[in-house]
Amino acid sequence: MASSVFFTHSHYSSSPSSSLFRHHRHLVAPPTSLRFSSSHVAPVAAMTTDSSAKVIDGKSVAKQIRDEISAEVSRMRESIGVIPGLAVILVGDRKDSATYVRNKKKACESVGINSLEANLPEDSTEEEVLNYISGYNDDPSVHGILVQLPLPSHMNEQNILNAVRIEKDVDGFHPLNIGRLAMRGRDPLFVPCTPKGCIELLHRYGVPIKGKRAVVIGRSNIVGMPAALLLQREDATVSVVHSRTSNPEEVTRQADIIISAVGQPNMVRENWIKPGAVIIDVGINPVEDPNSARGYKLVGDVCYEEAIKVASAVTPVPGGVGPMTIAMLLQNTLISAKRVHNFE
Amino acid sequence: MASSVFFTHSHYSSSPSSSLFRHHRHLVAPPTSLRFSSSHVAPVAAMTTDSSAKVIDGKSVAKQIRDEISAEVSRMRESIGVIPGLAVILVGDRKDSATYVRNKKKACESVGINSLEANLPEDSTEEEVLNYISGYNDDPSVHGILVQLPLPSHMNEQNILNAVRIEKDVDGFHPLNIGRLAMRGRDPLFVPCTPKGCIELLHRYGVPIKGKRAVVIGRSNIVGMPAALLLQREDATVSVVHSRTSNPEEVTRQADIIISAVGQPNMVRENWIKPGAVIIDVGINPVEDPNSARGYKLVGDVCYEEAIKVASAVTPVPGGVGPMTIAMLLQNTLISAKRVHNFE
Repeated sequence: MASSVFFTHSHYSSSPSSSLFRHHRHLVAPPTSLRFSSSHVAPVAAMTTDSSAKVIDGKSVAKQIRDEISAEVSRMRESIGVIPGLAVILVGDRKDSATYVRNKKKACESVGINSLEANLPEDSTEEEVLNYISGYNDDPSVHGILVQLPLPSHMNEQNILNAVRIEKDVDGFHPLNIGRLAMRGRDPLFVPCTPKGCIELLHRYGVPIKGKRAVVIGRSNIVGMPAALLLQREDATVSVVHSRTSNPEEVTRQADIIISAVGQPNMVRENWIKPGAVIIDVGINPVEDPNSARGYKLVGDVCYEEAIKVASAVTPVPGGVGPMTIAMLLQNTLISAKRVHNFE
Repeated sequence: MASSVFFTHSHYSSSPSSSLFRHHRHLVAPPTSLRFSSSHVAPVAAMTTDSSAKVIDGKSVAKQIRDEISAEVSRMRESIGVIPGLAVILVGDRKDSATYVRNKKKACESVGINSLEANLPEDSTEEEVLNYISGYNDDPSVHGILVQLPLPSHMNEQNILNAVRIEKDVDGFHPLNIGRLAMRGRDPLFVPCTPKGCIELLHRYGVPIKGKRAVVIGRSNIVGMPAALLLQREDATVSVVHSRTSNPEEVTRQADIIISAVGQPNMVRENWIKPGAVIIDVGINPVEDPNSARGYKLVGDVCYEEAIKVASAVTPVPGGVGPMTIAMLLQNTLISAKRVHNFE
């Protein structure tokens, strides 16, 4: 199974860290405040003299964020009697989608967020899905609505996603949200979960962004494009590399910060990386592995073994960005509930 | 008057070309079809052996586009009896704003577009302005609404701009439009006029964009940011340079295409420019000039005398992007009228 899989917002890997990086120390980020973008842990960007990079431990940071969310959910319940609620709509019986939805449900439970679920059969009509969305739109106990992608091919994804009330669009994919993300002086209601998780990792590890060269590899609506907009909001000088870029390694080699989200296993090699760069690897690609009981293992877009030698910090796959996506989804749901109830 | 002026979408310069580039030949683009992005004139990007750059003659291209629009307006009027209409709202009595509005009106008349105008006194309330917008929103003879900026300081610009129906927002500044511009697989209803004019100049001069390195200097909501999104839609590899960029000349020097929109006179010098690059200069900055009767002259963000020696093509200031902005406004108004009447 050497095929590559494009990363979608639905991914959430809970696999244990692989043995690839057992020789590298994990930084465990100490508890910090809940506010997005607020807290720094340990500056890593300057540590270029180290012969091996720091591992950016997404699993541990995500755990910490879930703990913070959990505390906030309790405080809210105790203060005003409101419990944030997330509704997930799953159409059809794709195994991977069912797993993601189950993981989201578990994550909600772990922090005290109410989780609602609609499971519709594969042959549902678009109207039936829209009816569910409409019900959740009107339900005051629901603060976030998430439609699990992909939808069956007979449905118009754009129509369905557009039906979610923007105040409950915790995925942050609504064009109005993206427009606000792109514009100076405007703020999106929600920042899309995966790119938000990438930036949060940089913040929690104290990686300076302002004035730095950043390269985003990939320009998807759900990761690459919003990640580039977020980095620019933080005053990085951002370049976007994509399939039509003629010299991707040359452009990428100039970056202090690399965010890769293309779904190409091990595409980013040593010669793409400036010594001391910080790398956030969003790719989760299955590649053949006869040593694994499953017959495959998951690798990122970045060749980890090479990156760890040149970069100052790298996210592993799995255990890097993956766990952050769902933590950000919980955070967006909490933000939504706080906003609607004016709770600070 | 050595101050710099930030370029706004309201600029429209009709001054004759300055003597600066009298030694350089002007390419006059032959008539082409109206379709945006459709027509090429003469490839310039490869002409790096030339000791001096081509002048990208925005005045002449804008004239050509106005002729095309004029023909389409006639065809529409004769076929279905509909005349496109543009309403401009001007609040207060700023001299520069009054000039821009007058120029827009003249431009409308020159192509047969109906021009409506509301002149409100400086001390109008926000509600009064919103009433006018609401009237134009409901008026079927109005296909485009433009609020002349800046508004008096006692008004909330965002509220007022948001009140314009997105189907009539020919400026293309609505966040929903910007979001669609950023997203793959989505299309904005209108592309903001000035960045659209920049790309149109590249197209009409046959400058290849796909796979090229492009640098946008400036990240304003009305020029830099949408210009970067447009270049990316055309498969350029785009970097955005801004006030926090630590080495702007180094980044800019890598560009095959430079679009500058910062309002800093002569900021981009020879050493910022890769030999053979194509330069679109959006800046219109007044600088002292004792030889001028007015006491000042207009210059771009790019040092023209130096650029013309290194680049393969450059827009002059005035006479480059300026005239294109209003041509694109007329084009957006025509597009809006065609869309609402389903006229092709």
